[in-house]
Amino acid sequence: MNIGVLGGGQLGRMLALAGCPLGLRFRFLDPSPEAPAGDVGELVVGGYEDGAALERFARGLDAATYEFENVPAQAVRKLAERLPVYPPAGALETAQDRLLEKQLFSRLGIPTPAFAAARTAPEVEAALEHVGLPAMIKTRRMGYDGKGQAVVRMPGEVAGALESLRRGAPGGAGGGAGPDLIVEAFVPFERELSILAVRGTAGEEAFYPLVQNEHGDGILRLSRAPAPSVSGELERLARGHAASVVRALGYVGVLAIELFQRGGELLGNEMAPRVHNSGHWTIEGARTSQFENHLRAILGWPLGSAEAVGHSAMVNLIGTAPPAEELLAVRGAHVHLYRKAARAGRKLGHVTVWRDTAHDVDAGLESLRRHLGGAEKTW
Amino acid sequence: MNIGVLGGGQLGRMLALAGCPLGLRFRFLDPSPEAPAGDVGELVVGGYEDGAALERFARGLDAATYEFENVPAQAVRKLAERLPVYPPAGALETAQDRLLEKQLFSRLGIPTPAFAAARTAPEVEAALEHVGLPAMIKTRRMGYDGKGQAVVRMPGEVAGALESLRRGAPGGAGGGAGPDLIVEAFVPFERELSILAVRGTAGEEAFYPLVQNEHGDGILRLSRAPAPSVSGELERLARGHAASVVRALGYVGVLAIELFQRGGELLGNEMAPRVHNSGHWTIEGARTSQFENHLRAILGWPLGSAEAVGHSAMVNLIGTAPPAEELLAVRGAHVHLYRKAARAGRKLGHVTVWRDTAHDVDAGLESLRRHLGGAEKTW
Repeated sequence: MNIGVLGGGQLGRMLALAGCPLGLRFRFLDPSPEAPAGDVGELVVGGYEDGAALERFARGLDAATYEFENVPAQAVRKLAERLPVYPPAGALETAQDRLLEKQLFSRLGIPTPAFAAARTAPEVEAALEHVGLPAMIKTRRMGYDGKGQAVVRMPGEVAGALESLRRGAPGGAGGGAGPDLIVEAFVPFERELSILAVRGTAGEEAFYPLVQNEHGDGILRLSRAPAPSVSGELERLARGHAASVVRALGYVGVLAIELFQRGGELLGNEMAPRVHNSGHWTIEGARTSQFENHLRAILGWPLGSAEAVGHSAMVNLIGTAPPAEELLAVRGAHVHLYRKAARAGRKLGHVTVWRDTAHDVDAGLESLRRHLGGAEKTW
Repeated sequence: MNIGVLGGGQLGRMLALAGCPLGLRFRFLDPSPEAPAGDVGELVVGGYEDGAALERFARGLDAATYEFENVPAQAVRKLAERLPVYPPAGALETAQDRLLEKQLFSRLGIPTPAFAAARTAPEVEAALEHVGLPAMIKTRRMGYDGKGQAVVRMPGEVAGALESLRRGAPGGAGGGAGPDLIVEAFVPFERELSILAVRGTAGEEAFYPLVQNEHGDGILRLSRAPAPSVSGELERLARGHAASVVRALGYVGVLAIELFQRGGELLGNEMAPRVHNSGHWTIEGARTSQFENHLRAILGWPLGSAEAVGHSAMVNLIGTAPPAEELLAVRGAHVHLYRKAARAGRKLGHVTVWRDTAHDVDAGLESLRRHLGGAEKTW
């Protein structure tokens, strides 16, 4: 079978590496001829809205998916007219808009930080009345890895925050009024967690265990799986939230939801309608990887167990990546390099330390830190 | 780094799938344009003794290895003049010749069935005097998957056995006298086991646990890992045998040794200087797969742990392969299809059932048997 993937980044690359053993072949559509997935499948170079490129991409495919959440929903809808494309375009549209996302969470009874929509400075001021200070102002669309966000601590900071967002958000500009925005309460929380749900075409579901995430400069640095100190109750709460989201969306594939833990409560932060960085540990550390389960889900095949095996920690290699052989000197380290050119802030690869116990994983992280020579400051 | 692999079969395919995450790129040399490794790397179509093809293959490679044990040692030697090629050609030459192999085992104190070299019918008769009946007559070279072998139960069967070997062994013909042969005692044994050793360029070693193998029609059908009911003593004995072989050969890479268990004794049967079918379970069931460890070894990188995680059973899909989705309905099943055209006796893929306990693995095998609809008769 031939599987098409919109986007040819590392997620596409890892999808293909998981799908090849299942006898699947892959084709990617990506604007860059250097897309990392080109090593493991056919690469069609072109924009997502380029009709001719989309046509070349679609020809002969049995099913398609996407690995980039900012792919135009219109391209997904167009493709879905001729072949099965999952996750559904509606889920993509919701996930592409922070306001729709938060409204969905609210509607489903998933608590969120207080939020309100806004476009102009006076609307932002009004939203702050409702939301309180400090607050986050975010563009509703096109945000990822901490981009399209600004913190406001005092009322006087609104103008500066809007200006920084206007400069940083090329796709989000809405007329002269600036991009569509969401104003969110800046809530104190104990930690960031994420849950990955998988849902098949017949509605069958699997849930990976909660993962604990640490970000730095808005980019994921470290994920620990399973998340330490998670009660059965908290795990059930997270699964309940995830189940209600995938059911409401008629979802098919892997969906990631980022959550803030505040006591026994889990606040919905955002979701990604695709395989997710906080699930990379599943390649080694789970019975079935998120990549394989995503493919099994979109093809209507039986899902694999999402159970964790032992303990894992995943560290992103950001900006620079030491040679593989140095990283492999760390006991239990599994290295994934994406073959991308080095650039500040860019995810070039990841390392998963996979061991029997959380204690052994900590020892591995300590050793890894030495090999990374302080390059990874945030963990 | 660019890695060359002589041979583009499923072993090459799985080497590349293990090496891509490490940032490696692959090129294969294979006589067939349909070689299964072509999906995951560049395929140079040509014979192993075709100088021009070998030249195109070698250009720009950083290191090379082979995945097919009948590749001409001369091609390996030629390649080794310009880049690092492992395992060493000497090991390949020994493994290609059943007589040299058995002589090596004997020299290292590894027991073997009684054996003797022969070419002509009178020499076979003389060898049988030494070896006893029943006996196996095998071509010294070019045998695999049970090819190039004949059983002799009575003295009168020698002529027929020689005739069948002469017809079946195109590469082994030595003048008018017929192919070079080895006559081996047909020993009773309790079971077939194999051990995979990995040795790095600096002599570091790792050993996978003993695996129990079941053959049918000379082809591996089922491997259980770790092998059931193996004492610490037996495991140490196997590792001692494997260590003495890899040291004697100055070996680099993964080496498989097939053994017969007779009580507390392990008889050396044969070895393969490459990743091995009885090690496919390591993709899921070991800390580091044989494929990744082979690459780490030949590149002089630190080896990964060869420890088993839980229990595994690997079943070859021979001649026919049901659709992936049927096999994936079996709990704990991991499917590997090689995308080869179906043909009787051909290995088209394998399934590994990977679970926490041997009991769960047995349940998985039972369920798998039903899905295979009796196609796999021997287990």
